[in-house]
Order: sequence, then structure tokens, then C-alpha cells
Amino acid sequence: MGVPLFKELRRTYGFDEVAIVPGEVTINPSMAVTDFGLGDHVFSIPVLASAMDAVVSPAFATTMHEAGGLGVLNLEGIYTRYPDPYSILEELTSAPQEEVTSMLQRVYSEDVKEELIGECVHQVKKTGAICAVSITPQNTKRFSPMAVEAGADVVVVQSTVTTARHMSRSYRGLVFSDLRHSIKVPVLVGNCVTYGASLELMETGIDGVLVGVGPGAACTTREVVGVGVPQVSATLECAAARDEYFKRTGKYVVVITDGGIRTGGDLCKSFVCGADAVMLGTPFAQSEEAPGRGYNWGMANSHPELPRGTRIKVGTKGSLESILFGPTSITDGTQNLMGALRVGMGMCGAYTVRDLHKAEMVVAPSIKTEGKHFQGLA
Amino acid sequence: MGVPLFKELRRTYGFDEVAIVPGEVTINPSMAVTDFGLGDHVFSIPVLASAMDAVVSPAFATTMHEAGGLGVLNLEGIYTRYPDPYSILEELTSAPQEEVTSMLQRVYSEDVKEELIGECVHQVKKTGAICAVSITPQNTKRFSPMAVEAGADVVVVQSTVTTARHMSRSYRGLVFSDLRHSIKVPVLVGNCVTYGASLELMETGIDGVLVGVGPGAACTTREVVGVGVPQVSATLECAAARDEYFKRTGKYVVVITDGGIRTGGDLCKSFVCGADAVMLGTPFAQSEEAPGRGYNWGMANSHPELPRGTRIKVGTKGSLESILFGPTSITDGTQNLMGALRVGMGMCGAYTVRDLHKAEMVVAPSIKTEGKHFQGLA
Amino acid sequence: MGVPLFKELRRTYGFDEVAIVPGEVTINPSMAVTDFGLGDHVFSIPVLASAMDAVVSPAFATTMHEAGGLGVLNLEGIYTRYPDPYSILEELTSAPQEEVTSMLQRVYSEDVKEELIGECVHQVKKTGAICAVSITPQNTKRFSPMAVEAGADVVVVQSTVTTARHMSRSYRGLVFSDLRHSIKVPVLVGNCVTYGASLELMETGIDGVLVGVGPGAACTTREVVGVGVPQVSATLECAAARDEYFKRTGKYVVVITDGGIRTGGDLCKSFVCGADAVMLGTPFAQSEEAPGRGYNWGMANSHPELPRGTRIKVGTKGSLESILFGPTSITDGTQNLMGALRVGMGMCGAYTVRDLHKAEMVVAPSIKTEGKHFQGLA
Amino acid sequence: MGVPLFKELRRTYGFDEVAIVPGEVTINPSMAVTDFGLGDHVFSIPVLASAMDAVVSPAFATTMHEAGGLGVLNLEGIYTRYPDPYSILEELTSAPQEEVTSMLQRVYSEDVKEELIGECVHQVKKTGAICAVSITPQNTKRFSPMAVEAGADVVVVQSTVTTARHMSRSYRGLVFSDLRHSIKVPVLVGNCVTYGASLELMETGIDGVLVGVGPGAACTTREVVGVGVPQVSATLECAAARDEYFKRTGKYVVVITDGGIRTGGDLCKSFVCGADAVMLGTPFAQSEEAPGRGYNWGMANSHPELPRGTRIKVGTKGSLESILFGPTSITDGTQNLMGALRVGMGMCGAYTVRDLHKAEMVVAPSIKTEGKHFQGLA
Repeated sequence: MGVPLFKELRRTYGFDEVAIVPGEVTINPSMAVTDFGLGDHVFSIPVLASAMDAVVSPAFATTMHEAGGLGVLNLEGIYTRYPDPYSILEELTSAPQEEVTSMLQRVYSEDVKEELIGECVHQVKKTGAICAVSITPQNTKRFSPMAVEAGADVVVVQSTVTTARHMSRSYRGLVFSDLRHSIKVPVLVGNCVTYGASLELMETGIDGVLVGVGPGAACTTREVVGVGVPQVSATLECAAARDEYFKRTGKYVVVITDGGIRTGGDLCKSFVCGADAVMLGTPFAQSEEAPGRGYNWGMANSHPELPRGTRIKVGTKGSLESILFGPTSITDGTQNLMGALRVGMGMCGAYTVRDLHKAEMVVAPSIKTEGKHFQGLA
Repeated sequence: MGVPLFKELRRTYGFDEVAIVPGEVTINPSMAVTDFGLGDHVFSIPVLASAMDAVVSPAFATTMHEAGGLGVLNLEGIYTRYPDPYSILEELTSAPQEEVTSMLQRVYSEDVKEELIGECVHQVKKTGAICAVSITPQNTKRFSPMAVEAGADVVVVQSTVTTARHMSRSYRGLVFSDLRHSIKVPVLVGNCVTYGASLELMETGIDGVLVGVGPGAACTTREVVGVGVPQVSATLECAAARDEYFKRTGKYVVVITDGGIRTGGDLCKSFVCGADAVMLGTPFAQSEEAPGRGYNWGMANSHPELPRGTRIKVGTKGSLESILFGPTSITDGTQNLMGALRVGMGMCGAYTVRDLHKAEMVVAPSIKTEGKHFQGLA
Repeated sequence: MGVPLFKELRRTYGFDEVAIVPGEVTINPSMAVTDFGLGDHVFSIPVLASAMDAVVSPAFATTMHEAGGLGVLNLEGIYTRYPDPYSILEELTSAPQEEVTSMLQRVYSEDVKEELIGECVHQVKKTGAICAVSITPQNTKRFSPMAVEAGADVVVVQSTVTTARHMSRSYRGLVFSDLRHSIKVPVLVGNCVTYGASLELMETGIDGVLVGVGPGAACTTREVVGVGVPQVSATLECAAARDEYFKRTGKYVVVITDGGIRTGGDLCKSFVCGADAVMLGTPFAQSEEAPGRGYNWGMANSHPELPRGTRIKVGTKGSLESILFGPTSITDGTQNLMGALRVGMGMCGAYTVRDLHKAEMVVAPSIKTEGKHFQGLA
Repeated sequence: MGVPLFKELRRTYGFDEVAIVPGEVTINPSMAVTDFGLGDHVFSIPVLASAMDAVVSPAFATTMHEAGGLGVLNLEGIYTRYPDPYSILEELTSAPQEEVTSMLQRVYSEDVKEELIGECVHQVKKTGAICAVSITPQNTKRFSPMAVEAGADVVVVQSTVTTARHMSRSYRGLVFSDLRHSIKVPVLVGNCVTYGASLELMETGIDGVLVGVGPGAACTTREVVGVGVPQVSATLECAAARDEYFKRTGKYVVVITDGGIRTGGDLCKSFVCGADAVMLGTPFAQSEEAPGRGYNWGMANSHPELPRGTRIKVGTKGSLESILFGPTSITDGTQNLMGALRVGMGMCGAYTVRDLHKAEMVVAPSIKTEGKHFQGLA
């Protein structure tokens, strides 16, 4: 109506709002190849496990390696704060719900012990597994050399929102281009959700970006601060930045959708959005091997003054093997995620994950509005 | 905002999101003609029953024929795997819900018996009914000649997603143009949901396409794999392909909306979207004559490694006669579907189903948001 | 994506999706004038009561007249089918819910008695009230002269969908221009929902159109047949037709939004959409004076073969006086509808109902999404 | 389809429909400055407490001042109608829910006592706090000089919808430019929701506008009258008017989002929409210091003939200190609102509130649709 607008609002989309369109060519799922490369490493499945204490312990990192993926160990969690982290896990998972946030705040106020950093890395490396560690930006200059010296193969620099230009009074900002030169292993940085921020991060020379602010089951950043971008739109933007950066430089920086993926459907959609890999938290917290014993929580949950999210009960659904590869008799999409990926690739005629980037996707009404009225009676 | 996008997302629509606009001319419902032609066959109602074991047994195919429609028999279901399918039905419908998916996986791992194919076809044919059979693409070359030789009148080649160009290592792809030449009966192929895929299928010389990926009540493909297109948009696209193909070649290939139709409203909307006929599963599984005894399940539900959907309790609502033709005292749109079609045709001034293709349709808020607040008190 | 579309789908809106924007000028509610003119009659409130048996009895028509509005009596309901309609009402309102649709079907299969038509009209007229009667198109030629001769002041020709060009084998279509010439009272026709259909009706010389297909609380036409247009869009279109017709001919044909109005908010929005008056069913069925004793049902509910809707329990909320004019201590918008209209006119700076036509309206998220989280605790 | 439309409907947005996009630069939250200036006053937090009797008593105004914000005292509420308002509060908060609306109607029909106006202002001023008072337009000419003379520092002229041009028969319209000249303190006026209305108000020389019609938890104006604009769109429009007015005149008129803010997320979004400050009702009614003892109600709730909203139970959540500044173990966004603002400013790289105006915002699906399925199990 000619009313001047203070700002335009773009429409963004989450997993539940879109659907993948089958291709004009289909292939047999057995022909699909799911390899994912990061630096010199090739993983047979394009899946990382989140750097959450209830998901990745040193032992779980080995289990993920054996499954063909990569578990990321949180270097500022209970495994490096406590010599006996398993008694802490026992305490955190048996506390009543109303006390758990203050308990998380207390547990995570303990200092990180530098000697435990090396010990954690060794625990993973001695099993022959590839070792990835996660550090917050403010501690990266201090902890990352220790971790790499101990044998860490991949460094993940991660906070809720990470940019190439962070301003702080209390510490000098991390310069990612310096970091990338000083340590000789692949560096993943996150999280980001926009074309501009991810392109700036790529320009520092890093090897991958983690995509996602606010989507995870254990996080309430969108309620508490109002900040967040749904994963479909966030991944589409960061993938566009990757393609632009590749066109300019010939360097392919991987894009990893991190958080909010619950089902095989969500996972397939991430790849159609342009992801090279996905990072899963809660789905793996539901595995029998997860240290969280049927619970999950995130680093933002223990913020001393503004906790965002709390411990959630996620239940234990099956072995990591069955969650990733089935076979299963569970029909809600939470088991056999790699089987779902292969079937999705087959329906879209995609031989590789990058072929899946080319599939068509549509905005579609929630699956709940069509033909599901009888399910409740089952 | 000038942000480069990795891909554009079209908006698509499902039944609950649209409404039919009444016409500027109306006719008396008694003047509406609902005939549907397929090859040399003319059916008095444009309705097919889905090739699901809980819906179409050989006996149900005859009942559908007597009602004026066409029941499609699954040639790879229990009727061709077991000499005594009714004991299997008994087992499947009395099992506890938590055991039924693994039971389905076991039941459907039994081989199809070639001798039962002919026997099933004969059971239908000896009653004078038209016999339609459904076969998956990988078994079509083997089973379709047997079925046609035994007297099958229509062959339906059906899988979750079927394209004219399927790639496989384990079997040579089915060439639909060869198939159509070798068997002398009408061939329907599905399922497809896009303009491009349906046009390619039409160009192979087949006689009809089944439209729908993911919409049915007994299917969870959208949750498990993320693939699917809502039925309104899918039918609109395939109908556009039919019209384009007709314009080019003069051959009219029928478009059949398959799945997700629960009410007379959904059914009428399918025709306004351009469907020539509809295929119903769960609404017929609710008939007294259905072999599923108040339950329904689909072929994807028994996948050995990635079951998509499970047995659902749909209840028994009335005779097939009352579901199709009434009269009824049920007011939620699930009974007297043909009466609803005639009333809808009347309100749109449509003398034939093809006239109904020309009716206007709008995107409308869910019926739940207007004036329904009192219903719960009824 | 360049995909040819079978048809375009316009977006339409219902009451819950829009909100009225306050004006740049406001007036005191006491300055608002709510008069509504129809032929030579002027009503002090722009409100009609629906021709439903549970809403308008001859006595209720008088009550509406005294309140300043117009009650429309159904000439094909129980008041003209039975000499003692009140025992029928007793039966219909005391029947168990599961039996009521078949009871409605039986009750309404009784013939209309011609002698009762005159008697009903006389009952209204002898109290000094203006008498409006409703007749279906197929019976209009037969019943309308009787009603007018008995003294009826307004004739309403009404069915679910009425067009100027209806085709039938069993009776010759009603020609509205002939009707309008033969009877000397204002004629309202409905229901319609589009620009084209309402313009055609206006061109026959009638005096008003009723707007609304499918919105009422007692109707399930959208579920059963899929036909309907939400009231905001329907009223916007018919009001545009009225303005176009007025521009061409100088004749102002009134537009009456009929159905789906539950609250003062819905009522105000109808006028902002361009309505000249509104027709209410369920809100008046909730009055102490309504013959339905806390229940409501519509004519489509008793269709012998395809009932659309059933008897709904609406409860008794207060006197017609309190529903229309308050004062009230009820805060959900269902009481003091005329007070709400005056307040709304005040906020929009509207001195008359036609001024309210000029107010701005926006598409707004459901009121449930903003700040209502605490209400449930009240 | 070429159908003429009676009017166009713009799409508007509420808090739950949008999300803030993190910036390309981030800053440490400790570097964010949250100052808010109004006339010669500078507040360390950009937050006002609503002029509701259950929120701001004279004592609460002092508490707000000590917290760094501004409490607005309703000059036409119980504190100026009753010499002993606390017994009235006792009565209102202990009444059964079904009697409370009529009790509110009765309580607020008592006259305002002029002598109590000065007394209320003195109570606030003697503590050294800045004193803001709220008056309805019809009483502003009478009460505002008394209040200013008694020492009031800020006058708020407030009704549901206030325009620069109000027409009334019973009193001569308030001329804001006269008012602004006659009293020598800052004047805030509201509520408004559009570019046009707020620009007209700004042109009268006032110092700030309150934005919001219909959004608050204690208000049902959108149900009862249908009038209202969601807060995101309303704030965007009024902020655009402020910028336009500033460009023309060099005078910066503050924009205050009033109502509908429940969480830190809503609060941050208000500033991204362009607000200079926010006004909170229910969140402060939940503080231990609030006079409403866990209940809240608004002025429109006691309208003698058309009450809009009623007393709602909001509960007591913690001290005002913990609601504003934490620390907290509550993770749903309702505590530590200023901590949330600082974190949000950090994520957007905003050093000041005006920097936050430049952050990007997107339309995003409700937070409930992504990754929240496990929360219910917690």
C-alpha cells in the first residue's frame, strides 16, 4: 500500500516445511556412494556426532569411527574438567529435572584441566580412530596446540554464533587464518547460518563450516534470545557461499548441517539443501553406546547466567549400528538413517552426495495435514 | 536481499489447503455423468481400489467391479505368496501392534509362487469381473506375461517412485515401450508426481499414470526419506503433462490420483486438479468387504531393512455400497463418496468429470479455522 | 521452475487470518450509526437471523424485529411441515447424538403444508414485525406468491450454491428477473461466493445477495464436497461486484455475509470486507429465545442421501438483547455484538457501516500465537 | 485471475513468526550498552512497566527505577479511585474467576479522586524515583496538570487506539500540540500501530509513541472487535515513521513496543524491528514485587458494557531483579531479559540498541516445528 517499511523480511524454511521431489531418473539404492572427504580423510558415511558430553565420550568417538563416521569430542566438557567424568554423568542423569539446570551450571563452572586434554585425545587415538576435538573460540589459541600435539586429527572451533570478526574486550579475537597456518590439521568452524558470514569464514582458509543456530532439540536460543535461522534456509545459504568460494578459488570447503535433524527425512533434506555432511546430537544420544544414558544437554544449557535449554530425556532407542544402518522394524524415520539416505538417493537418481545437491525440493504442507488421521489409532 | 540462493523452492499444496469454488452455472446432481474410460473398458465410477493386501482380495475385486469401479490386485502380496492367504490375514490382523512390523517383514519375505498368479487372476475372471493386477518394476518382465495369459485385463506397474529411466545393477531396467508392445492390455504406471517424470512415462506409450508419493495413510515415506509431493500439486503437474502430451500426439493418457483421499471433499478436489480417476486405499479398507478386517498396511511397510509405515487400525465403517453410494447418516464426508462427487459436479456446473477439470480452486485456510468451534460440543 | 501449471490457485482468507487496522482518525462509538436499508425498510442494526429452524421461529422473528434486525423464517422447515412444530423441536433436541442425523432425515422428508405457509406469515405479521421468508430455488415459483399474498415483506431464495443459470431436468430453472417482476417485495438470493456469480445475480434485478458457502458451524460442505470459499475473500469479491454493478447502473444491491461469524471481531471484519449486513445462525441459536434450546442444525444436515453437518450443541449463552447489545461480563467476543461494532467503527473513524468499508485490513497470524500463553491458566 | 478485489490485504507478522539473523560481526555481550534516553532522562535499561494496576503500584514504580527502568502508574486505576487500594487488590485477586469481570466493572466504576492523584505522585517522588503517569485522552486536560504540578516527570496519554484526530460529541478532542506546550515534561502517546497514525502523532510534537493494539496477554480486543496489528509489523511501521520524521525535522521521537512480549526472544525482536524501548505488563506482573499477586488485568477488562479480556492468572516467577538480570536456572526465556538482550546484541554485533535496529530478521517457521519433539519428555 505504499507504506515505507523499516526492513524487508525474507521467508525462511525448516525441515518440516519442505519435501524432496523424486527425480526423472531413479537408481537402485545399492548403487549410491555416501563417501565424505575432509582433508586427507575419507569417511564412508557423511555423518559427524556432535561435541556434546551426553553424545561423544572418547569411547563413543571410537564407535563412530568404526561405523565409518566422525565423533567430535568436546574439549571443554566433563571429560577434560573431571578425572572421573563417569561419576559426573551418573550425577547429571539421575538428578531430578527441577534441579538439573543449576547442577549443570555448577558442574561446568569447574576449570578445564590441561593434562586431561592430552589424555582424552590419547584415549581415542590408541584405538586407531580418527580424533576430532571441539574448542570454543576464546580457548582455541590455548587448547588447540595441546590437542594437535597429542594427536588430534581435526579441530572444530565452535560456539553458538561464530564469525570471522568477533570483538571482545577480555581477549584478542581469534584470527582463523593464523590458526589455520599454525596447526597442520583440518579446521571446522561454526556455527553460522548466512551466506555472508560463511563466505567470510571460508575466506580465512578453514576447511569446513558448521551450519545451524538454534535448531537442536537441546537448545532454546530462539526462545531466549530470538536468534536463529531454520536449517533448510541456513544450509541453502551456506552451500551457495561454498559454491561461490569454489568458483573463485577452486577450493571446496565442506558445509555440515549441525542440529535439528531427527529423521532420515531431515537428513536427506540437508543434503538436497547442499550439505556435504551432517552433524547429529540427539539421534546419537538415543543410542545404547551414548554416555548420556537416554538424556542429552548442550553447552549453552550450563551458561551461568542465561542457560538456553536444559537436560532433555531422549530415551534409548537402539544400538548406534541400528540407528545408522538398521535393519529396523521402527517406522518413524529415526532408525537406519543411512538406509534412508540410500533410498532417498535412489529416488532422486543420485549416485553421490553431491548429485543429491541437484535434486529438487518444494515447500510442502506439514506431513501431518495429509492422510495421517488414522495413525493415532494404530 | 540479494543473497544468492542455492535453489528455489516452489510452494506446493495438499488437499486440506485448498477448496473448490462453485461455478457461475450450477446443474442438478442427477445430470452429472461419472463415467471413466480405460482402453476399451468403461467404468461407471472413476474409482480404483489400491493394490494393498488389506484392501483388494480376489473377492473384493469382484465387489468393486459390481460397484462400477476397478479393484487392483497386488500380484506380489499374500495372495500370490501363500496358498492360504486368509490364515495369514488372520495372523496379521490379530498380532499386537508392537510385533506387527517384524511380522510384516517376515510374511513378505516368502517367495511369490508363480502358480498362484494364474489362480488369483482366474478367481477374479470367473466372476465376470474386469481383472487388474499390480506388479513392481523389477518383476514386471517375469510376472506380467503370466498374468495377461491368465486373463488379466489391466496391468499396473507400481513402486513408490517409478521413472522411465531407472538404473540398476541387479536387473536390466524395465523398458516401458517394449512392455506396452509385448502385452496387449492397458498399462498403468506409477507412482510419479512431476510434470517431467509423468511426461516421460507417457512418451513410452503407456495408458495411464498413478499420481502420489508419500500421501497415503499407511505410508511414512515423507518422514523416513523426506521424499514426497502433496497430492494437489502433484495432480496439477501430471494433468498438465497429460494435456501437453495430448496436444502433441492426440493420445489421452489417464491421470489417476492415488493416495491421501479420505473424504468426498478430497475426492472432488482430485478431479478439479485434473485427475481422470482416483485410487483409494484406506477408505476401502474401512469397508465391511475389505480383507483387512479394519486394518490397513502397504507394501513399503514390509521392507526388510527400512519399513516405511506400519499396520494402522482404520476401523470398519460400513458396506462398500454405503461408502460409495450411501445413503448415509454419517456427516464427516467419509460416506457416499459418489453422492459427494455428483453434488460437487452440480455446484460447479460440470456434466462430466472432464468438465470438473475446468472448475476453479483456491488456497483456503484449513476448515478447522472457520466456524468449527462448536463442533467439539456436539 | 518453468513447469506448466494445470491451473493457478489464488490465496483466500477466513476471519481468523485477518485483522482490522485502526484508522488515522478515531471517533467516539456513540457517534456511530448502524442503520441498514433494504427496499423501503430501514433496520437500526445491520443483522439478519438465519433461516434455520433452531434459530428463527415465528416468535423469534418478532423478537428480532423488536431488536431492530430481521429474522428470516424457513418456509420449508418444521414450521410449515408440521402443525405442531414444537413437539418436533422437543424430539430433535432431546434425541441422542448418534440418532439425530437419521431423525433429521426423517423429519424433513415430511411434505410442506401449503396452508401452514400463510399461517406462519400471519403469526409474524400480526405482531407488527417485518416478515422475511426463505424458500429454495426449486420451490420458489410455487411458494413465494403464497407467502407474499399472506403478507411477507421480503423473500429470500436460498440454497447452498445458487446461480443465475441453474440447469435441471426435473424442473425448469428459476428465472430471477421474472420472479422479481412478479412479486412486489425485495428479493435476496444466495448463497454465492464469487465476483462473477454475484454480478450475474445482481444483473437479474434482485435486491441483495447472501455470501457464504461452507463457513457455518452447522455445515460440513467443505469436508463432504470440498466446495467453499472462506468468508473474508468471498465477501471481498461480492462487494467488488456490488460496486461494479452500482457504477454501471446506479443501483445498490446489498451484500450480506451469511455464516461463520462467531464473535464481534468476525462481525466487524465482515463489514470491513464490504458487507452491508450480516446473517447470524449459531450466535442466535445460543440465545434464550431461540427455538433450538441450545442446539442448532441446518437444512443441508437433513439431506436424505448426503447429509452435510449434523445437530450441534451450541449452549444457551444469554438473552438476544445481551448477545446483541450487552452489557456483558463475557469477554470472548460473543456478547454485545453491536457494542463491538460501534467500538470497531470508533477505532476506524467510521460514522456509518459504509465508512467501515474503507477501513484497512491485514493478513495477521492467528490471535493464538501472540501473548495468549497465560490465558489457559485463568 | 483478473478478479477485481475490493481491497488488498498486506501480510503482517507477530513475534512467533520471525527470527533474528546473527550478524557478520559479533561482539562480547559485556561490550553492549543498553541505555535509553527520554527527554533529559537516561535509563540504563530500555524497559518500561505497563500502566496496569496489577503491575505498577507507587512502590513498584520505585522498584523499577532502582532497576534502571521506568514504571508507569495508571492515574485512573485503583490507586487514585480508592484511598486503600490494597484492600481492593486483595478483593480482586481472591475473587473466583467467574465473578471477577463483573467485580472489575464495579470496582472501576468508582470515580477517580483528584486528591489521590497528587498523593500517588508524591509517593513515587519522595523515594527519588522518576515518576511517569498514564492518563486516558478524555481526562488528560483535567488530570495531567495536577500530576505535573505534583511532580510527575513523564506523562503517558494512552487508550486502546489513540490518534491525533479523535472525534467526540461528549468532549472536545485533545489537541496534542497544545498539551505538549502546556506541560513541560515529555509526553508519550499511544497506542498506535501504523505508519500514518504514528507519523501524525509525531507531528504534534510529542516525545514518544507506544506501539501495540491487541497483543497483550490480558487483552482480547482482537477477538471482541477484530482490531489489531501484530507487534512485529506494527513496530516496523512506527519505526519507519520515526526515521522519516527524524529525516524531515531532526527530532528523534522514541518508539516503544507495548504488549505481547513474553520472552527475551520477543524483547530482542522488538529492538530489531526498530523499537527504542519496550513496555512489559505480564512479565512484570509475574514478579514478587508486583501488586497483582500473580494475577494481571488491563483497563479494557473493566469496560462496563464491552469488557475485552479478564483477570488472568500469571503466577509469580521470581524477583524483578531475577526477571530483568538473572542469574537464572529457568531456560524458557522468561528470566534474565537484559542478559538475553546483551547476548542478542552480541550475536548481532550491536554495541547499542540503535545498532540492533540494523540487524537482519527473517520470517521463520514457529520454533515448535524444529527439533522440539523431545522437549515434552524432559
